[in-house]
Amino acid sequence: MASMDKLAALVNSFGSAVLSVGREVGLNIALDKSKVSQGVKVSNVCVAALIGIVGKGARGTVSIMQNKDSFETVVTAMSGGMIAPNVDDAVSMSVVAELANMIGGRALLQSALGQVDVTPPQMITGENIKNIPQPGPTMKSFTLPFNLQPKGTLFLVLSLGDA
Amino acid sequence: MASMDKLAALVNSFGSAVLSVGREVGLNIALDKSKVSQGVKVSNVCVAALIGIVGKGARGTVSIMQNKDSFETVVTAMSGGMIAPNVDDAVSMSVVAELANMIGGRALLQSALGQVDVTPPQMITGENIKNIPQPGPTMKSFTLPFNLQPKGTLFLVLSLGDA
Repeated sequence: MASMDKLAALVNSFGSAVLSVGREVGLNIALDKSKVSQGVKVSNVCVAALIGIVGKGARGTVSIMQNKDSFETVVTAMSGGMIAPNVDDAVSMSVVAELANMIGGRALLQSALGQVDVTPPQMITGENIKNIPQPGPTMKSFTLPFNLQPKGTLFLVLSLGDA
Repeated sequence: MASMDKLAALVNSFGSAVLSVGREVGLNIALDKSKVSQGVKVSNVCVAALIGIVGKGARGTVSIMQNKDSFETVVTAMSGGMIAPNVDDAVSMSVVAELANMIGGRALLQSALGQVDVTPPQMITGENIKNIPQPGPTMKSFTLPFNLQPKGTLFLVLSLGDA
């Protein structure tokens, strides 16, 4: 498979994994198609889960970036309201890590790429977190924003290059 | 090689790679041995470079976390004062990405682990960035703080587990 095909396959696989896993865990989530873009377009991110990708033909990082509203919606939905969302609490962060784990696993299954391996999610908190794409022809970045109900935006940021 | 040996080898390799690469690019850098610790102990981080690690027996993320003083010291030293440090500027961020690239490459060479593969550095900016270690017996985190002259602290955070 050509490398550009492999990148496109990864972007599509992760995008649909966010939707299918999200709905299975009880999220009301939809891709904001009009705002899908090349590059990094995120705002007010306070929680990020980063998954490293290593494989033949593709290499990079997939980031699931959330604003505070998205974090609260995800933790409340996935825990059935049993866990109070708090970025300083390891338990509510582990809920988001589990979502990222499921998305990573599903994406690799769906993409049927084979020989692509991933790291466990690295969880990051902070204020105004942004990915900074690196210049150069080999790496490409894509942002897919997802709207959550009742509130929140979850950004899927892919930074991928040929292996 | 047993997995714990492999984790220890990675921690040692990355720690000595920070020192050797740092000195080669003109940094006055020293490990603050008294503050090496398990878990994540970072403060005031505004720039992070994350490298994913995938291999037989070890899997995780290595983060090079810097406070503002460290970022300014690194960009000034590596560019010979030619680049003004600015976290919103892709050029000065690429200086830090290059440092992370060199550290990752050196660490893998020194560790002689074979079959360990890494992602390109994912650059992140923000305020008060922190890694949140995930609970569970399989993942271990370590923080190695390095003091820079004339100013700044660079934190090497490893979150590693058995593959």
